[in-house]
Amino acid sequence: MHRTHTCGELNINDLGKEVTLAGWVQKSRDLGGMTFVDMRDRYGITQLTFNTDDDAALRATAREVSREFVIKVTGKVIERTSKNLKIPTGEIEIKVSGMEILNPAKLPPFLIEDETDGGDDLRMKYRYLDLRRNPVRNNLVLRHKMAQETRKYLDGLNFIEVETPVLIKSTPEGARDFVVPSRMNPGEFYALPQSPQTFKQLLMVSGFDRYFQIVKCFRDEDLRADRQPEFTQIDCEMAFIEQEDILNVFEGLIRALFKNVKGVDLAEVPRMTYADAMRLYGSDKPDTRFGMQFVELNDVVKGVGFPVFDQAELVVGINAEGCAEYTRKQLDELTEFVKRPQVGATGMIYCRHNADGTLKSSVDKFYDEEQLRKWSAAFNTRPGDLVLVLAGKADKVRKQLSELRLEMGNRLGLRDKNTFAPLWVLDFPLLEWDEESGRYHAMHHPFTSPKPDDIALLDTNPGDVRANAYDMVLNGTEIGGGSIRIHDRGLQSLMFKHLGFSPEEAQKQFGFLMEAFEYGAPPHGGIAFGFDRLCSLFAGLDSIRDVIAFPKNNSGKDVMIDSPSTIDDKQLAELSIRTTL
Amino acid sequence: MHRTHTCGELNINDLGKEVTLAGWVQKSRDLGGMTFVDMRDRYGITQLTFNTDDDAALRATAREVSREFVIKVTGKVIERTSKNLKIPTGEIEIKVSGMEILNPAKLPPFLIEDETDGGDDLRMKYRYLDLRRNPVRNNLVLRHKMAQETRKYLDGLNFIEVETPVLIKSTPEGARDFVVPSRMNPGEFYALPQSPQTFKQLLMVSGFDRYFQIVKCFRDEDLRADRQPEFTQIDCEMAFIEQEDILNVFEGLIRALFKNVKGVDLAEVPRMTYADAMRLYGSDKPDTRFGMQFVELNDVVKGVGFPVFDQAELVVGINAEGCAEYTRKQLDELTEFVKRPQVGATGMIYCRHNADGTLKSSVDKFYDEEQLRKWSAAFNTRPGDLVLVLAGKADKVRKQLSELRLEMGNRLGLRDKNTFAPLWVLDFPLLEWDEESGRYHAMHHPFTSPKPDDIALLDTNPGDVRANAYDMVLNGTEIGGGSIRIHDRGLQSLMFKHLGFSPEEAQKQFGFLMEAFEYGAPPHGGIAFGFDRLCSLFAGLDSIRDVIAFPKNNSGKDVMIDSPSTIDDKQLAELSIRTTL
Repeated sequence: MHRTHTCGELNINDLGKEVTLAGWVQKSRDLGGMTFVDMRDRYGITQLTFNTDDDAALRATAREVSREFVIKVTGKVIERTSKNLKIPTGEIEIKVSGMEILNPAKLPPFLIEDETDGGDDLRMKYRYLDLRRNPVRNNLVLRHKMAQETRKYLDGLNFIEVETPVLIKSTPEGARDFVVPSRMNPGEFYALPQSPQTFKQLLMVSGFDRYFQIVKCFRDEDLRADRQPEFTQIDCEMAFIEQEDILNVFEGLIRALFKNVKGVDLAEVPRMTYADAMRLYGSDKPDTRFGMQFVELNDVVKGVGFPVFDQAELVVGINAEGCAEYTRKQLDELTEFVKRPQVGATGMIYCRHNADGTLKSSVDKFYDEEQLRKWSAAFNTRPGDLVLVLAGKADKVRKQLSELRLEMGNRLGLRDKNTFAPLWVLDFPLLEWDEESGRYHAMHHPFTSPKPDDIALLDTNPGDVRANAYDMVLNGTEIGGGSIRIHDRGLQSLMFKHLGFSPEEAQKQFGFLMEAFEYGAPPHGGIAFGFDRLCSLFAGLDSIRDVIAFPKNNSGKDVMIDSPSTIDDKQLAELSIRTTL
Repeated sequence: MHRTHTCGELNINDLGKEVTLAGWVQKSRDLGGMTFVDMRDRYGITQLTFNTDDDAALRATAREVSREFVIKVTGKVIERTSKNLKIPTGEIEIKVSGMEILNPAKLPPFLIEDETDGGDDLRMKYRYLDLRRNPVRNNLVLRHKMAQETRKYLDGLNFIEVETPVLIKSTPEGARDFVVPSRMNPGEFYALPQSPQTFKQLLMVSGFDRYFQIVKCFRDEDLRADRQPEFTQIDCEMAFIEQEDILNVFEGLIRALFKNVKGVDLAEVPRMTYADAMRLYGSDKPDTRFGMQFVELNDVVKGVGFPVFDQAELVVGINAEGCAEYTRKQLDELTEFVKRPQVGATGMIYCRHNADGTLKSSVDKFYDEEQLRKWSAAFNTRPGDLVLVLAGKADKVRKQLSELRLEMGNRLGLRDKNTFAPLWVLDFPLLEWDEESGRYHAMHHPFTSPKPDDIALLDTNPGDVRANAYDMVLNGTEIGGGSIRIHDRGLQSLMFKHLGFSPEEAQKQFGFLMEAFEYGAPPHGGIAFGFDRLCSLFAGLDSIRDVIAFPKNNSGKDVMIDSPSTIDDKQLAELSIRTTL
């Protein structure tokens, strides 16, 4: 037997026990006639002591081991003289009577400590060593707990987890599909799913009623924005429901996760329409950990001869409370911020509400004190506040101000990782105009149902049609999204038509689904949560990479195993393909 | 709201309630002034009644609906006059006051009943309709329960579920890898994992200690033998353990599944060495639901001048108890059976132990009654028994007799699907000789540890080296297998050498793993269960296809979605490949 106990479980109640432990050497040190070794495993750290007086040979062996050796020791649990009350095992140590080196270790390329000296590339190459560090391992333990709790919650509500295929069919929408040549069917390819969308809808047609799956999905696309070519979704679908049922069930899921994984009692999740989110925050995923809502100023500022405002479609601003004392330098920084290419504004106007009650703006040439009072009233400012205003095309200026608002949130410490502000965003547009292709695209996907009241607009004002689509947003990040689906062949055909599919293309790609709708399809809808993102938010991390055991880098490469890589010509020939390089 | 209750929950205690239900029309019938509709959902069937006297228009609508229409009805729960006590809802019916057709249905191409008239191909094409049938849906519900129970059991033992990558690296051992061209890395390919083997070993090096994953794996190979290109494993690994720990933990898993999913208390799982399994059953996966163990007869039958036996390496037989009365025709059938190309024997000898105590064999010319008494003694026959004997090359004749034994088990009804006989088979050979390539192959995989006592034999008698490898067998089917792994770089290199890898090849393919072994790898081992197979055995099914929601056919095709299929040249060009057809 390799161990009687783990390195995390022995304490003062175990004094006198003869035990066997195994683990890794965290560190060792010599003090007079004694050698101390901290031995680590997944469960904790236990101190070992070796005494020359007892057994000089044993101590000599102990002095040979160094960091990350795997050892197995037998000894007696004794009380420590110098206790460490910060860890559960800190009141005891093991007086070692026998030791075996199970495996020696080369010096690791970086420190296996909570704070390491290893750079990103090195830690990716030696991912198996990085995974030894507590913070990294804890992320994966958290992920495991979240998956378990998700399954427990959904199973308790009669959801059935069904595995859908990984080898599916490529679609023309799937410009970013990964494809897989078939040896048995030369010249033909499978595709890896970007989501199990059509399969979960077919399960509803089959009467499964409540489906879920924690499932890998795949997208061969630009990875810069903290994406991974393979990612995990909590994928769900329900039949005989309306939007309200979905919102209730999955608000319940998020609350259960917060309660059972983080011990946080989440308040009821507020709801906001897409239109309001855009108007008040300039974003369909507003960070509602803080207020600072947009105030539109067209009625207040236009017509006094300031051309920037007069020519703008929209003048809109935020009140940065308590920032009236911002220095010239700080204000210049903000102006630089909005002028960055990623933000794209041409300039920023401000108005201080000074502590003495006076108002002072960067456009005093055009607006006198009386006019600025109207600004102040619009923002409801108090002495000490600072108003920041942008102007331009409505769509663009909202996005720019949204960036500025988040920047101010950061500067004011309003975006605490331990505060959680979830939000439902409802009534998304069904379609969005794509400049590049000169046609409408489905904002969610082609299976999303328009709101019945808006169907008539499809022919006249397609951009105004609202969908039965919803996103859950957490702290400014979209963590999940879904919709009520179309379950009628006629409406589905109409949607494909509006999305620019010819009837033949629609039939070739999605004929099976449309045919299924003719054999008794119930009303249904669903949602999918980005599991990696959700875990990273729960862990307080900035990147999803840190909650994935073996992530790929920004080039889609796993540098540890050196993948992707070339394969030999014989293998290619068997698959009836060759490279064109 | 679409429903207040499901179709499976209303009963005599709900009399008088106003309810709303939704579901599919199972069938409808007219009787005098009444129309009866059976409405079905995942939870059950509820009878609806429509009465002309109450509402002629409503009844007229009810008469319009036919099989598989999706409807929603409102009405009152009343007591049935003619009760059906076989179903939980059989004492009540709904007196309908309002009905809505949510979706009409075309006539399905086959009956949606427990017994259907649809052939395999039709049911595969309309899989979403086949999934509506109770037996098919129940298989997937069973699968869900088994996955939930597996996770509950392993989570309770501190196992952590870790997702390993699906896009990995192709290996030369991986002649049957599916590969995935990388758009971002032109000319390079990922491979889909045949198992997460190396990743789970790296997790042990990382100190994860107890890992599991219910995970999709992939193999591009001949599918005739009830295989699927994508299949699911319960994949597990443990560190600081010995074989005994693995056997105990996973015997516990199987017992928990039997107990919690099927309500069966499984006895302790017996153990048998590979050598004994081959000697007693001619198979490394013996069906131990019945005895009929092999008896070797060389000492008994040789030397009396019967050339077939004298020239054979091994003469071996079984006692088919109670079969002495087999007719000439039945015996001829058995002879034909063993002569089939799949079995490959040249003939079969028998010996009846007649009810009157006499012995009568098919080789009476060579063996007199006294000699046959020795046969009888060897098999311990009683009056009424029938001995069946084959002779030939030891390896081959054992396999042939194994087939005959299973055939006799079938004929005698000894292989009941509701009887469960699990078995551990231990001490597999490390290597097996491959005639085709003229070298040894790893019987399990290249990471399996030889038994320490046998390492010395690697150079002299490689075929005799036993591995720390084990299979779990259930009713003659291998349901899981695993091994203690090599955790030492030197031993791993030696293994690769014996498997015919050059040092360069070994380094190129598995350098990352061997390097990991140098940074403190603990002793570890694991096991993987074939989840599809396990579910099919629990469900009493012959094929794994029936426990998979959307299986592929024998050509690896999903005929429902028409996959795999051709993709357009633009997509191929972006991936820097083209087909060679």
